Amino acid sequence: MAILVVGSVAFDTVETPFGRAERVLGGSASFFSVAASFFVPVNLVGVVGRDFGEAQLAAFRGRNIDLEGLDRRDGETFHWQGKYSYDLNSRETVRTDLNVFELFKPRIPPRYRSSEAVFLGNIDPVLQREVLEQVEKPRIVACDTMNFWISGKPEELRKTLRRVDILLVNDAEARELSGEWNLVKAARAIRALGPRTLVVKKGEHGVLMFGEEGSFAAPAFPLEDVFDPTGAGDTFAGGFLGYLAGAGPPRDAALRRAVIMGSTLASFCVEAFSLDRLLTLTRAEIDERYRRFKRLTHFEEI
Amino acid sequence: MAILVVGSVAFDTVETPFGRAERVLGGSASFFSVAASFFVPVNLVGVVGRDFGEAQLAAFRGRNIDLEGLDRRDGETFHWQGKYSYDLNSRETVRTDLNVFELFKPRIPPRYRSSEAVFLGNIDPVLQREVLEQVEKPRIVACDTMNFWISGKPEELRKTLRRVDILLVNDAEARELSGEWNLVKAARAIRALGPRTLVVKKGEHGVLMFGEEGSFAAPAFPLEDVFDPTGAGDTFAGGFLGYLAGAGPPRDAALRRAVIMGSTLASFCVEAFSLDRLLTLTRAEIDERYRRFKRLTHFEEI
Repeated sequence: MAILVVGSVAFDTVETPFGRAERVLGGSASFFSVAASFFVPVNLVGVVGRDFGEAQLAAFRGRNIDLEGLDRRDGETFHWQGKYSYDLNSRETVRTDLNVFELFKPRIPPRYRSSEAVFLGNIDPVLQREVLEQVEKPRIVACDTMNFWISGKPEELRKTLRRVDILLVNDAEARELSGEWNLVKAARAIRALGPRTLVVKKGEHGVLMFGEEGSFAAPAFPLEDVFDPTGAGDTFAGGFLGYLAGAGPPRDAALRRAVIMGSTLASFCVEAFSLDRLLTLTRAEIDERYRRFKRLTHFEEI
Repeated sequence: MAILVVGSVAFDTVETPFGRAERVLGGSASFFSVAASFFVPVNLVGVVGRDFGEAQLAAFRGRNIDLEGLDRRDGETFHWQGKYSYDLNSRETVRTDLNVFELFKPRIPPRYRSSEAVFLGNIDPVLQREVLEQVEKPRIVACDTMNFWISGKPEELRKTLRRVDILLVNDAEARELSGEWNLVKAARAIRALGPRTLVVKKGEHGVLMFGEEGSFAAPAFPLEDVFDPTGAGDTFAGGFLGYLAGAGPPRDAALRRAVIMGSTLASFCVEAFSLDRLLTLTRAEIDERYRRFKRLTHFEEI
């Protein structure tokens, strides 16, 4: 039931209205892996520089995360710097130093090739396909992407999407990819490109999932203190796919529980900088918040 | 179990990306009354001009809506003109002619004074209190307001809120009224002003309710064709309070079902201009969409 994840491992420098964190652990594959590792073993494929040492690796150690695929190269680790607006609803990228990530060519260790689920993080769709060509026969292929690839490599992205079961994007990306403002129409157009299931992440407004057995809507967990939204989307994906990979056939009922599990993990992520909250999190806390999600959304038939 | 509603009855001229409607029936009390009348008798208090005739009154006739409280005055009916952005998410008021609504003083017919539920539409908080002084002992007092009163008559509004059980506002209004950006904090501050229950309407992002027994989150119904959002909030309020007034004690479980019922009614309202869709709506269609809401949001325990 292992998940293969390919994506960025990075240093983030983040400024929010509540404070600043300097060169802390970040990157889509980092958030994803820690979240998913609560449910299934994770095989991590990424690249870091020489400045990425034991202090950072400690976040992954002692968890169900295999690091053989984490390539270490001469040079510096990918560094992203961002600043959030006062309401945390928008952010500005202050600086992006791709460093060793610029020439990243995912190489999948032989042991990883039988991974049953694959998460293609937000990288060049050509590389995403190269990953799929190196794995055997994953039961679930999930994928993220972003405006940079949607507008920059639309044809390559379409080729990749034909091989994807579940696409996870935010609402703006769903709209850009489909050319439709209305999300129901956008979902129909995107699902026609390949993914049987589309998960649209709407940040504080929750998640909409469109699948073969209809639609599912989940709110975000209402939190009194949102500290840093960085990584929430990747943490959602990790909780979602981690739960799903361990939950038997990815049918509608399991997909719905997976959305709530992803939302649960993401709700913890935003309570602190970096992966700080995820690293102290326990399975009991996860299950308790899942139950609070149930209580938050429950209503009776009439 | 009758509801007394006090608010505007108006002509709307609306421009959306899909078309234009000229001087069609609108106003908060109109949308509210028709929505609520699916569940309980409605006593309507408002004012119209001589230009408001049988063609308009036809919308209320043959329903459970009492029109004795609809005052007819010399002059013209309130006219609002608005234009929506391409995505329907923002609108600009092109013109507001208050006309006879400018000097509106709600007078409650004696027969209405025993109404068990009261909805104070978005009018001067001083007038809202005058309404409460003319009724006997309503079981539920619900109230709407807007930025104009929040910033213009904050002290009067606070006096009114002390006598309100349920406040229904949108997210921007909740933030302005409380001075808190975070909605959980905003809810705590607002509930300290009087209302035991706060319902925050977030448009296409659904509804958050904060009450004595915790929080409830509901999505908006995902629609492929949203035609005209005008009146959705008032229709929500009508469906919400109409259902609640007919549902026994306004406890948590009933409040949750009422939120879904309000969302159901609002989802029909936006499918056409004015009250057009509400006027053809049947109880069977309402119940069927309520069941689809259940299916939309349902997930299992883990």
